[in-house]
Amino acid sequence: MGALVLLSGGQDSATCLAKAMADEEGPIEAVTFDYGQRHRIELEFAQRLAQIAGVPCQQVNQDFISTISTNALTSSTIPITSKKGELPSTFVEGRNLFFLATAAVIAKQRGISTLYTGVCQTDYSGYPDCREDFIQSMQTTLSLALDYPINIVTPLMWLTKAETVTLMNDLGHIDWYAWTHTCYEGQRPACGQCPACQLRLKGFHEAGIDDPLSYKTKNIDTI
Amino acid sequence: MGALVLLSGGQDSATCLAKAMADEEGPIEAVTFDYGQRHRIELEFAQRLAQIAGVPCQQVNQDFISTISTNALTSSTIPITSKKGELPSTFVEGRNLFFLATAAVIAKQRGISTLYTGVCQTDYSGYPDCREDFIQSMQTTLSLALDYPINIVTPLMWLTKAETVTLMNDLGHIDWYAWTHTCYEGQRPACGQCPACQLRLKGFHEAGIDDPLSYKTKNIDTI
Repeated sequence: MGALVLLSGGQDSATCLAKAMADEEGPIEAVTFDYGQRHRIELEFAQRLAQIAGVPCQQVNQDFISTISTNALTSSTIPITSKKGELPSTFVEGRNLFFLATAAVIAKQRGISTLYTGVCQTDYSGYPDCREDFIQSMQTTLSLALDYPINIVTPLMWLTKAETVTLMNDLGHIDWYAWTHTCYEGQRPACGQCPACQLRLKGFHEAGIDDPLSYKTKNIDTI
Repeated sequence: MGALVLLSGGQDSATCLAKAMADEEGPIEAVTFDYGQRHRIELEFAQRLAQIAGVPCQQVNQDFISTISTNALTSSTIPITSKKGELPSTFVEGRNLFFLATAAVIAKQRGISTLYTGVCQTDYSGYPDCREDFIQSMQTTLSLALDYPINIVTPLMWLTKAETVTLMNDLGHIDWYAWTHTCYEGQRPACGQCPACQLRLKGFHEAGIDDPLSYKTKNIDTI
């Protein structure tokens, strides 16, 4: 009964929270992770979203993650790059491993078996720990490690960004997106230019829905 | 090439370090974890063992583990108990999940694919994250998460404590055991009475080898 939603403060996890509240019986809870990310505003937005949704949200410190590998999301000296055939510099090694393992331990303490995460294989980023084969293997591993059934629900796995926006609209919570952070440059209003902003804007454009978020510029370069 | 050994400061991981140095070509490194354990001396012994062996040892802070569940190894207010059919109160939920995931991320950074861990299915404790089915599933999960081959070697998986002692003796490093910590009561000299001390003493007795560790009392209750 119930579900624990991994909430990052981004658009995808906000959608997962709305989806879990629509689909699951029993109490919904959230967990968010401080892993030394450059954009601390994500953490505030995760708490704000949980508050709007009326669910408790536990924040877990995992800043050790930034001490065991280097990447552009936790280090301000590494530029954000993405080359074909290489992992993008924003890849935080093992991030979803740690987040899902932590969520599973917390879920077991609460008597919850179902985790919601916004990972997405259709995502442009190509992170290996967002793929379905990883999620399925992780689900088995977690259940074995804790001797407790863990079920990982990934409502966005095969959705495009436009389909995610449409899903949130259908769930009646498109306004929640005003309290999400996407911009890799960390800007508020969002820069509208970085790859993350561009992807987000393109999704709304294709869905034919207005993004409630404020932008400096809303031009889409890629279409 | 090379291997990364998960070093806890206990007898089993010390044996794994000796085994990795005997079996693996290329550089051997170690990693140890500060997870808020009651017996901080374990961390000193892990560093001491690495120094004796001449390998670098990285200590990673994972004290978040003690904030997401409660157990007798990280909380001094919970007694150490073990009832049939229940997980013992010393079970730290998800501990090996976090340790192995962290070790895998560090190993990838170093270009190492092989992890050594002293988990043991024949162990009396019945921890689910020490079983071979968990380790095999974890190996697959880690390789998928990092898009990098991870191989987890568990030399002690099917050994009794006596066989582990004999293995260390054959490897020529029985003296290293003077720099290991086992006692659940955290005593130096070791209490000799707690379940962990009793199990250790029994292993040495069955192997017919002297434990170089100092004890308050060396009586074995269970044989």
